[in-house]
Amino acid sequence: MTVKTGRPIDGVSMDEARGLQGRLTKPAGSLGRLEDLGIQLAGIYRACPPPVPRDPLIVIAAGDHGVIAEGVTPWPQEVTAQMVGNFLAGGAAINVLAKEVGARVVVVDCGVHAQFEASPMLHVVKRALVTGDIYVEPAMPESVALELIEEGMSFALQQAARGVDLLLTGDMGIANTTPSAALIAAATGVSAHAVTGRGTGVDDHTLAKKTAVVAHVVDSFQGDRASASQLLARMGGFEHAFLAGLIVGAAEASVPVILDGVISVAAALMASLIDSTVQQYLIAGHRSVEPGASVGLTHLGLAPLVDLGLRLGEGTGAALSVPMVRAAARILAEMATFDSAGVSTAKD
Amino acid sequence: MTVKTGRPIDGVSMDEARGLQGRLTKPAGSLGRLEDLGIQLAGIYRACPPPVPRDPLIVIAAGDHGVIAEGVTPWPQEVTAQMVGNFLAGGAAINVLAKEVGARVVVVDCGVHAQFEASPMLHVVKRALVTGDIYVEPAMPESVALELIEEGMSFALQQAARGVDLLLTGDMGIANTTPSAALIAAATGVSAHAVTGRGTGVDDHTLAKKTAVVAHVVDSFQGDRASASQLLARMGGFEHAFLAGLIVGAAEASVPVILDGVISVAAALMASLIDSTVQQYLIAGHRSVEPGASVGLTHLGLAPLVDLGLRLGEGTGAALSVPMVRAAARILAEMATFDSAGVSTAKD
Repeated sequence: MTVKTGRPIDGVSMDEARGLQGRLTKPAGSLGRLEDLGIQLAGIYRACPPPVPRDPLIVIAAGDHGVIAEGVTPWPQEVTAQMVGNFLAGGAAINVLAKEVGARVVVVDCGVHAQFEASPMLHVVKRALVTGDIYVEPAMPESVALELIEEGMSFALQQAARGVDLLLTGDMGIANTTPSAALIAAATGVSAHAVTGRGTGVDDHTLAKKTAVVAHVVDSFQGDRASASQLLARMGGFEHAFLAGLIVGAAEASVPVILDGVISVAAALMASLIDSTVQQYLIAGHRSVEPGASVGLTHLGLAPLVDLGLRLGEGTGAALSVPMVRAAARILAEMATFDSAGVSTAKD
Repeated sequence: MTVKTGRPIDGVSMDEARGLQGRLTKPAGSLGRLEDLGIQLAGIYRACPPPVPRDPLIVIAAGDHGVIAEGVTPWPQEVTAQMVGNFLAGGAAINVLAKEVGARVVVVDCGVHAQFEASPMLHVVKRALVTGDIYVEPAMPESVALELIEEGMSFALQQAARGVDLLLTGDMGIANTTPSAALIAAATGVSAHAVTGRGTGVDDHTLAKKTAVVAHVVDSFQGDRASASQLLARMGGFEHAFLAGLIVGAAEASVPVILDGVISVAAALMASLIDSTVQQYLIAGHRSVEPGASVGLTHLGLAPLVDLGLRLGEGTGAALSVPMVRAAARILAEMATFDSAGVSTAKD
């Protein structure tokens, strides 16, 4: 794949927002990062004040991973499918957080080792039941990676056309922190040791094995490190390919994307290899405990909004930041100015 | 005043919540600090699962400060009253954030240099129009400090009786970071230099003057550093006295309190001198840029939920954390367990 350059966010709206921040009834800069976020939203939505997101959608991309055969996790593979069932039944953490922040949840079966009954909450793009064991073979043919990227792009564009104005990237997939670490190491050049973490909480022995797997996979990669589809084919998960496409499509539709943890960050790095402007449309929802997430965020130039030691995935860290994103837009849309409220300003 | 020992939060409910966190469909500990917060809420509300707060109230305690005569701020005193008007009209940042997080706002006139028309959003406990200039004289008679503490306690108890189940401490008062720094230095023993900050954004010259004022006030204090009323009388603001009482009353009513920035933290330190168990009822909403806030939070053993570089006050940092507090309670109340959802657990 060749890198394209999409449309940058709108500088004129950002300048207007910057000016407006200075006239609202608060000391200049006193809302800290909420002010920067409001300016970014003005740029993404190409309007000042930016609209307040009304229909945020949490997209849980789910997939299974052949690398589980290498013993990188204590969780059995069946948990991926069981948790998809839990999402559809509304019993998972992300369902609870979604309700709290006023977001909807959709699960995308990108390649889970099970069949599910049709549900309005389920979207199926599956090409296979599980990826190859990346320790010994490619994850998927490059053609499948490209198809899943396309599916992600189409899905984002369709949802935007239906009125979704904020997308959140979630994930489910037992063992999926292993391919995430590999993608992050390969895309950033940072060592396997520095990007591989304990995932859901593995012991020292399993962490050492997992790190060795990541190091081997990255070292043995012969393709083009600037090609998202080649990287995904060799060491990705189906959900990474779909989410990378989703991010590219969201940017194309001028919809901001809130990233969750390490899986989302790996997908965002892939998206930035497809379209070098996508970073401008990204908001880092939270800082995952997983070290690769921080490495990737730094590479993308993003600072997280929430830092509460979460390491669950599903989109939970992204969901917690939705009220902040909405608040940042509402500040610009709803606060009084010094003039309108008759409030005096500081002496110079 | 002598220190009393109030009722500690409920250990039995906390143990139940700890056990429940381990059975919910997520890896143990994977929701990080949200899990600890849920356990604390169970302890405060004395129930597992804890109720989800339905009626959070942001209490903006407003007062004027004689120390403005020393040139510690570039903002004119009239801005306190003007901003009270802005709160009542709904145009301030806190009004916008309150709407976003589903909280109500009430303004308490603890001693503002103006008269306001009656409003259902305004509660008046004023004893004087402005404190004494603490650089040269006491802030208020000790009797006034005690009366305002009583007013705060009564207010919390009344609100709890009306169904308020979460209290947030906000503030407004030009120059109020100066008495806050003094109270924090005096209560913690940390130097004036380490607790005095730029407030709404003062220049180097003003910061030096402000630090010298704080150092002088703390050094010249002859009273009992363990007496909240003596400290408040010498170097407090009316709003600190009211908020200290509010916190003590909230703990008595088993209502959690989310602290905002440096004014709230100073008030919380005073509350902890009145009742040594209040810390257990406190949630640190955010980390203010103001250095005294961090010093005080450390002294109280509290870690903030939000860290976005805010330095506005009004309760804005506390408000941003409301969805997290609600989410922490909802997780315990609404998530499925591994058993109920038929999800397998990890191998040991």
